[in-house]
Amino acid sequence: MKAEILYGFHPVNEALSASRRTFYEIYIAGQKKSRRIEQIALAAGRNNLPVQKVSSAELQAIAGNVSHQGIAARATPYPLVEIGDLVDSALSGEHPAFMVLLDNIVDPHNLGAILRTAVCIGADGVIIPKDRSAFPTPAVSKISSGAMEHIRLAQVNNLVRTIQMLKDRGLWIVGLDQNAADSIFAADFTGAMGLIVGGEEKGIRPLVKKNCSCLICIPQMKKIGSLNASVAAAIVMYESYRQRRVVENS
Amino acid sequence: MKAEILYGFHPVNEALSASRRTFYEIYIAGQKKSRRIEQIALAAGRNNLPVQKVSSAELQAIAGNVSHQGIAARATPYPLVEIGDLVDSALSGEHPAFMVLLDNIVDPHNLGAILRTAVCIGADGVIIPKDRSAFPTPAVSKISSGAMEHIRLAQVNNLVRTIQMLKDRGLWIVGLDQNAADSIFAADFTGAMGLIVGGEEKGIRPLVKKNCSCLICIPQMKKIGSLNASVAAAIVMYESYRQRRVVENS
Repeated sequence: MKAEILYGFHPVNEALSASRRTFYEIYIAGQKKSRRIEQIALAAGRNNLPVQKVSSAELQAIAGNVSHQGIAARATPYPLVEIGDLVDSALSGEHPAFMVLLDNIVDPHNLGAILRTAVCIGADGVIIPKDRSAFPTPAVSKISSGAMEHIRLAQVNNLVRTIQMLKDRGLWIVGLDQNAADSIFAADFTGAMGLIVGGEEKGIRPLVKKNCSCLICIPQMKKIGSLNASVAAAIVMYESYRQRRVVENS
Repeated sequence: MKAEILYGFHPVNEALSASRRTFYEIYIAGQKKSRRIEQIALAAGRNNLPVQKVSSAELQAIAGNVSHQGIAARATPYPLVEIGDLVDSALSGEHPAFMVLLDNIVDPHNLGAILRTAVCIGADGVIIPKDRSAFPTPAVSKISSGAMEHIRLAQVNNLVRTIQMLKDRGLWIVGLDQNAADSIFAADFTGAMGLIVGGEEKGIRPLVKKNCSCLICIPQMKKIGSLNASVAAAIVMYESYRQRRVVENS
């Protein structure tokens, strides 16, 4: 059976609450007394999940050389979602669909932070390419503070084909590009849309850019290069969230 | 003479363009041919700055076990600004003052990302406490993509006393707190203000919170804990920037 080791309080806690993974074993370091970890152990026991007390050294041997915070779990691999299912459920929701597409985000810190923000604004899903992308590993789950356990994430072979499919299904595809003429503050983000965020070094690739419905930039008072990729993604996601709340409350 | 080693393209390039540090020596790895680094070497030569070609191994020995990207520099320490000067210059600017105060931000990644966003929105300055804070090291300059070389940064002994002083001088002190009742989207950020961002684990400390003029939260569709600290700071900074642009253009 395929399994991976989740570690850290939030990844284990959020994976348990999301109920998308099967848990084979939860490991808790006996020396590290912490109320929040004891509560996980109690809840796991009530749900007949196997909990094993180990030493900190044993936990380190299980989880590897990482900051495990006294807890780890052996569970089924990350539950990726099929792109077709992702789009279907996004289009059948109450709100206009909001998807995030990542083109060349290779830094796990950026992927984790983007997934965390995506969950906070209630994004319908995140799409990453199979190649040239950070992968939803346990480390990314930790960086995302466990948000990765809740987000619907699809991996696709060809981002350009996915963009075309999303456009065919009525989504407006907005590419974030620091050289674009139009500002995010002048754009309308209230309809069904996909936001494309490009990689740390070179931004969105030319062919992906060519397939966007429009390109927008984040204005800067002092231009000293671009913002951090996960910060830029968050600013646009929250500008969209702000606009949608205004529309809903009016 | 006191000195520190800056490394990486952006820190060295932005420190040169900011002209706030004195450069004792610029080290360039001979094997790593890169046009942008050659341009730095040419410009440095024109300004009579000492440029030394070294091997990659020598550069590693100079800069330490870091990703130096083929360039490093021995320069004067980071140019901190006096808090009094910072406030004077912020209050004499064309725009209503905007300051960022960090309470317990200890992760260098968060400090670097916050400094980068602060420069992008044209913040007048950033204030950090002497204790319990990440420090503006060369590593943070690298994380900030060199933005740290441009921002005006002051270190204070006592953040609460600084807040009181800022209030006395007319600044509205806004604390970011996920348990606050008021949303950033309902707040007015167009006046002279200081934004307080709390630490990664516990947010703003109680005594600091008590001294804020008001507390605001970033709304979340799905509440799964808080946003990453540098992401949260960026969302509020950009909401303030958006509101100020609306006011200026109306």
